[in-house]
Amino acid sequence: MEWIEVPDDGLTLQEIRNITKRSQAENAGIRQSVEDILTAVQEEGDRAVRELTEKFDGVRLDSFLVTAEEIEEAARKVGPEFMDILTEARDNIRAYHERQKQESWMDTFRDGVRLGARYTPIQRVGVYVPGGTAAYPSTVLMDVIPAEVAGVPSIAVFTPPAKDGSVNPYILAAAHVAGATEIYKVGGAQSIAAAAFGTESIPPVFKIVGPGNAYVAMAKRLVFGTVGIDMIAGPSEVGILADENANPVWVAADLLAQAEHDRRAAVFLATPSAALASAVEGEVEKQLAELPRKDIAAASVADHGKIFITKDRQQAIDIMNLIAPEHLEIDFPDAEQYVDQIQNAGAIFIGPYTPEPIGDYFAGPNHTLPTMGTAAFSSPLGVYDFVKRSSLLSYNKEAFDKVAEKVIRFANVEGLQAHGLAVRRRIDEN
Amino acid sequence: MEWIEVPDDGLTLQEIRNITKRSQAENAGIRQSVEDILTAVQEEGDRAVRELTEKFDGVRLDSFLVTAEEIEEAARKVGPEFMDILTEARDNIRAYHERQKQESWMDTFRDGVRLGARYTPIQRVGVYVPGGTAAYPSTVLMDVIPAEVAGVPSIAVFTPPAKDGSVNPYILAAAHVAGATEIYKVGGAQSIAAAAFGTESIPPVFKIVGPGNAYVAMAKRLVFGTVGIDMIAGPSEVGILADENANPVWVAADLLAQAEHDRRAAVFLATPSAALASAVEGEVEKQLAELPRKDIAAASVADHGKIFITKDRQQAIDIMNLIAPEHLEIDFPDAEQYVDQIQNAGAIFIGPYTPEPIGDYFAGPNHTLPTMGTAAFSSPLGVYDFVKRSSLLSYNKEAFDKVAEKVIRFANVEGLQAHGLAVRRRIDEN
Repeated sequence: MEWIEVPDDGLTLQEIRNITKRSQAENAGIRQSVEDILTAVQEEGDRAVRELTEKFDGVRLDSFLVTAEEIEEAARKVGPEFMDILTEARDNIRAYHERQKQESWMDTFRDGVRLGARYTPIQRVGVYVPGGTAAYPSTVLMDVIPAEVAGVPSIAVFTPPAKDGSVNPYILAAAHVAGATEIYKVGGAQSIAAAAFGTESIPPVFKIVGPGNAYVAMAKRLVFGTVGIDMIAGPSEVGILADENANPVWVAADLLAQAEHDRRAAVFLATPSAALASAVEGEVEKQLAELPRKDIAAASVADHGKIFITKDRQQAIDIMNLIAPEHLEIDFPDAEQYVDQIQNAGAIFIGPYTPEPIGDYFAGPNHTLPTMGTAAFSSPLGVYDFVKRSSLLSYNKEAFDKVAEKVIRFANVEGLQAHGLAVRRRIDEN
Repeated sequence: MEWIEVPDDGLTLQEIRNITKRSQAENAGIRQSVEDILTAVQEEGDRAVRELTEKFDGVRLDSFLVTAEEIEEAARKVGPEFMDILTEARDNIRAYHERQKQESWMDTFRDGVRLGARYTPIQRVGVYVPGGTAAYPSTVLMDVIPAEVAGVPSIAVFTPPAKDGSVNPYILAAAHVAGATEIYKVGGAQSIAAAAFGTESIPPVFKIVGPGNAYVAMAKRLVFGTVGIDMIAGPSEVGILADENANPVWVAADLLAQAEHDRRAAVFLATPSAALASAVEGEVEKQLAELPRKDIAAASVADHGKIFITKDRQQAIDIMNLIAPEHLEIDFPDAEQYVDQIQNAGAIFIGPYTPEPIGDYFAGPNHTLPTMGTAAFSSPLGVYDFVKRSSLLSYNKEAFDKVAEKVIRFANVEGLQAHGLAVRRRIDEN
């Protein structure tokens, strides 16, 4: 890991950006392939989806829809013990997300002026779930449950089939437990196209969420506008605030839990204690040897592991606010007192018994979080991402009369005389 | 205007999309020019901004920042009467947006498990304000005030200078009244680049909002990810629900108020009354002749004006839900009762004395609204666009012990052993 001795007057945002250099380069080759796939699906519908699935997933499917029998079979394969764990996680995630619901309202603001906001669920959404060897049922829960809590009546999951036409049973079981209304065996850019434009057998959705590879991410970027999308996620990250009281074994383990995700995963420690930093670094080396995914974790730690040595706790907090990490662990004594000083972080894990994996699966808050510094301006996935607001405005005649001339004056200043006339004609006919 | 007789079983989403065909085609030429501008500003900072301003706006500026003297002078030019109107509009807009603020919270969910959400304002935002002959002070209010209410400490307005280096006084006055902390005489794609990347004299922002021409829109699209952006706005739209009780003079005037914005503006009437439709169409022709912007309005009405004749009110509502118009006027008798049936609309104007221009300037709700059918999945600009949420998680030792093995099981199912180990090491050292 790279050590950065933070000067007394701290680091600037630009310096932090240069040190942590997180970014996703756009690949022109990917863009062209994805554009071709989008066009094919838009023009040829199911036929294109069928051919692309054969080409990329190696299986020719007559029907894309997962059947009730397949879902029952998945639950059997997963087994009752893990089904119970899934259900308990679902209940925890649902309980937290219930708190994000907002009520429509309408109130009198001034005499004869009623204003409000109407909250309505998006009518149909698509959730992308990556396939391949590593199946992430937790991501299925985290992406489907907020939509279900929001009241979205139609939640379609898209995931690539294996060569034998099956879908990972953990994915199917999680989708079913979470409340998905349909599951399609379609993956890659072709699934994003099918979701955005619709085909003969797949009705279009209004918003697409969920992580995916570079092709899926590019496809989401390109259909943005036709449909809504969640964030384009970058590599995972953790930032840890710790001092000499922290347990270096645990801190190292938490850094590695993030590092094992991806060679480009970024792990940050900010600490006023050089002794802790040394101990953590030694532990990282030691623990790395035991990991099945040690090649990935070692690359992440070597290329994107940074230790900031600060003059005090406050400066360590300042550094994390500039980094805006996806996950932030506060491992100072009496950790909760520092929460009010955190400006930028996707999720904040407070104290030594709240390691980041607790939040990945079980606690309740969403694990789909802003990466690459975007926590400075964006938020975890939540119920609000599956709801839209309509403003409500109602003036009665008296209230209208009171403001009519001012509105006309404003319209004329802006050179929009027809706006003024829409008001004027109502005055004239009164 | 084109008449569409809606069949008894209604129209599908795809049929509505074909009839209303709203879309913004991407222009490859624009993309290349904008990429060049972004690169120049990122590499050469102020020097590039200065040269691009000279090239596009015809004025060479030493400093981009508007001075306190210029703001005072603008208020004098605007005059006390309009300053009062601006201030009253500001107060109304602020009062409505105050209702969108949300409080941070943290609660006990289960024994030893505390969860919550922390709301923090984005630390610095940029607001783009188009220049040119038509100045829109209302847009300045609508974009700056939600940020100010959200508690954003630093709100930078960017707007192109005139050839003499001045800025439209209405823009300056509105920015000042709304609570902008800085105003820069920089416009076009170069201002979006300066805001996103920062220059020697312009600190970078974390989010950019506000409407602009095709170059500004493309620049926002390309810097999305480095910074947050609001929506990419399309041409303005209105949908009107009316029956035989409505006043055709007013309905026509409201359609034209939208049509005068843009040749591509779209105006929709859905009505069960063919008699009203005919009367409205006659009024549109008549009123068009009186409009200073009649060429624009006539093109909009001819190319993008649609009248849907429905079997009843319910079917008219269904049509509008598929269109998902930016603005929706309900001009049925006892209009408020229909609000609960509206699924998709940016803002809903209820009853005959709430014409759309009331909302553009004065009522309080935001006039920056989702266009081109995106109201099916997105929302008006608001305080929530200037705030981000951090999830809060805190487990004590007992609560941790209770779930530890389940979390490890979940991690192992997902093939992420280091996640499991971060938990396991805490059990072992207990």
